[in-house]
Amino acid sequence: MDLKSELEKRRKIFEKELQKYLQEQEPKVLYDAVKHLPLSGGKRLRPILSIISCEAVGGKIEDVMPFAVSLELIHNFTLVHDDIMDKSTLRRNIETVHIKFGEPTAIIAGDTLFAKAFEVLHNIKTKEAIEIAFKLSKCVKEICEGQQMDMEFEKRKIVSEEEYLKMIGKKTASLFKFSTEGGAVVGGGSDGEIKALSSYGWNLGLAFQIRDDYLDIHGEENILGKDVGNDIRNGKKTILVVHAIKVAKGDDKKKLLSILGKRDATDKEIKEVFEILLRTGSISYAENLAKGYYKEACKSLEMLRDSPQKELLKEIARYSIERKK
Amino acid sequence: MDLKSELEKRRKIFEKELQKYLQEQEPKVLYDAVKHLPLSGGKRLRPILSIISCEAVGGKIEDVMPFAVSLELIHNFTLVHDDIMDKSTLRRNIETVHIKFGEPTAIIAGDTLFAKAFEVLHNIKTKEAIEIAFKLSKCVKEICEGQQMDMEFEKRKIVSEEEYLKMIGKKTASLFKFSTEGGAVVGGGSDGEIKALSSYGWNLGLAFQIRDDYLDIHGEENILGKDVGNDIRNGKKTILVVHAIKVAKGDDKKKLLSILGKRDATDKEIKEVFEILLRTGSISYAENLAKGYYKEACKSLEMLRDSPQKELLKEIARYSIERKK
Repeated sequence: MDLKSELEKRRKIFEKELQKYLQEQEPKVLYDAVKHLPLSGGKRLRPILSIISCEAVGGKIEDVMPFAVSLELIHNFTLVHDDIMDKSTLRRNIETVHIKFGEPTAIIAGDTLFAKAFEVLHNIKTKEAIEIAFKLSKCVKEICEGQQMDMEFEKRKIVSEEEYLKMIGKKTASLFKFSTEGGAVVGGGSDGEIKALSSYGWNLGLAFQIRDDYLDIHGEENILGKDVGNDIRNGKKTILVVHAIKVAKGDDKKKLLSILGKRDATDKEIKEVFEILLRTGSISYAENLAKGYYKEACKSLEMLRDSPQKELLKEIARYSIERKK
Repeated sequence: MDLKSELEKRRKIFEKELQKYLQEQEPKVLYDAVKHLPLSGGKRLRPILSIISCEAVGGKIEDVMPFAVSLELIHNFTLVHDDIMDKSTLRRNIETVHIKFGEPTAIIAGDTLFAKAFEVLHNIKTKEAIEIAFKLSKCVKEICEGQQMDMEFEKRKIVSEEEYLKMIGKKTASLFKFSTEGGAVVGGGSDGEIKALSSYGWNLGLAFQIRDDYLDIHGEENILGKDVGNDIRNGKKTILVVHAIKVAKGDDKKKLLSILGKRDATDKEIKEVFEILLRTGSISYAENLAKGYYKEACKSLEMLRDSPQKELLKEIARYSIERKK
């Protein structure tokens, strides 16, 4: 089974569906801003995870589509607002919404994506629709809490690994968990299957975010589609930084702290930080941590019946810790 | 029946309920920002309207509470984000959320209020819960569209009355309509009752917004709890301005256009604009327009069975065009 072509197949079906839900035209500027990010591509990982989870428990692709669209809209809503807060200028190789349309319209565009995500849920035909809407609202609350923690950590000198994990659990893993869990619910999975896929999504999300931390400092800008080193410039307490601050000594520690949070840090300085992270063993520490969650994710799948989808989920987990973008 | 004491009675019951739903503590800064505006008072008009509408069709107050709380959270979410966009510094006589907590946290606090509004809906016990959640998402989309139109009108020289009415319909009347309509739905009203209260809420909302336009230029700052004249400073196309631009001539028109949109316009200049609006008949034009919607609102109530609540709704409509804050 070829991971790429399997993902691609589902991505195409999904994108056709997504476009169906993004038909609004007026006010033009608002809906141009609303569509800017969701129609510019992206991995579509969350919707694809929901689709495969639905299939894995014997559900039909068409039944999970509204849920999948809703997930992608929520994900894009959080990106639009996060980019304002993080002052990011580039995403998916194009201008961020607030750069292109201005902050006020970007704020409303995010709100509109959020509202649409709930609107779309109305098309779920299972009796669990209200339960899913409720869980979505709780999930968004968690994402907000995680984003706030992320920002507060920027201003703090020391953040523990425990605090870091709590933060990325809320900011990233909660939506992954909701994607796989919700897919299983819509697909009519058993309680055991739902629990298994929920646990898979959670661990996958943690592994995914740790890889994200790594890519932000060592990714290729043109592959990644966004600026490299911005986490360092924003003073973010990624797992790499959390670990390095704990173990770095002498000049390394001094240098690290002097570049961390420096808005105008040069590419050379970002590279210096990367060298420090190598020397402190923080890069391999993070890799091992991600690998641990990857293994947990795969273990969660064991109780599922064997199927091509089960294998696909394992491959996605592997991809999440090896990906280049 | 004393309007004030009847409203006060319901306001107290409502606020107790609202507090029950705002118990989250962590992250502290986020939830301080989330609670800042909703726990600082306000008229609570939308929840009270939903309560009285529920009662008017024979429903129980306790059944409509989650819906009422949800409305107030949505209203506050829009205020938090609007205040960022409008650069407002004062609301309900206290600092706006972005002034007190910074813009990033204010954006997330708004998002959290939005998410909570959906979460709260989960406590509605009627079978219509999913329908109400769906309608809420559509309503928020309309509010976003209205807010975008409002901002775009700031940059335009000419806005027609028709465009203005479409804008305030989305920005303000849609949530009023949803409040009264939803209250009737939760209360188990007949189709006719739901339609009547929906129409009442819509017309009330239009009348309310026109009065808002008036108060922004001729309200008392300490009664109003926010800066007077900001609509003029922001170049907003209120009904007063829409009318005055159409009929003003010569020096009046020149002066009006020169002050409109002037961010640092003095209080004296705001007063000059008010004098022009008096001379052009725009003040009385707006008053008559509001009166028309007030009458329509009252007419919508005719088919309801007679009750103290029906009288109360009429009095609220009258209040909406006579209020000082």
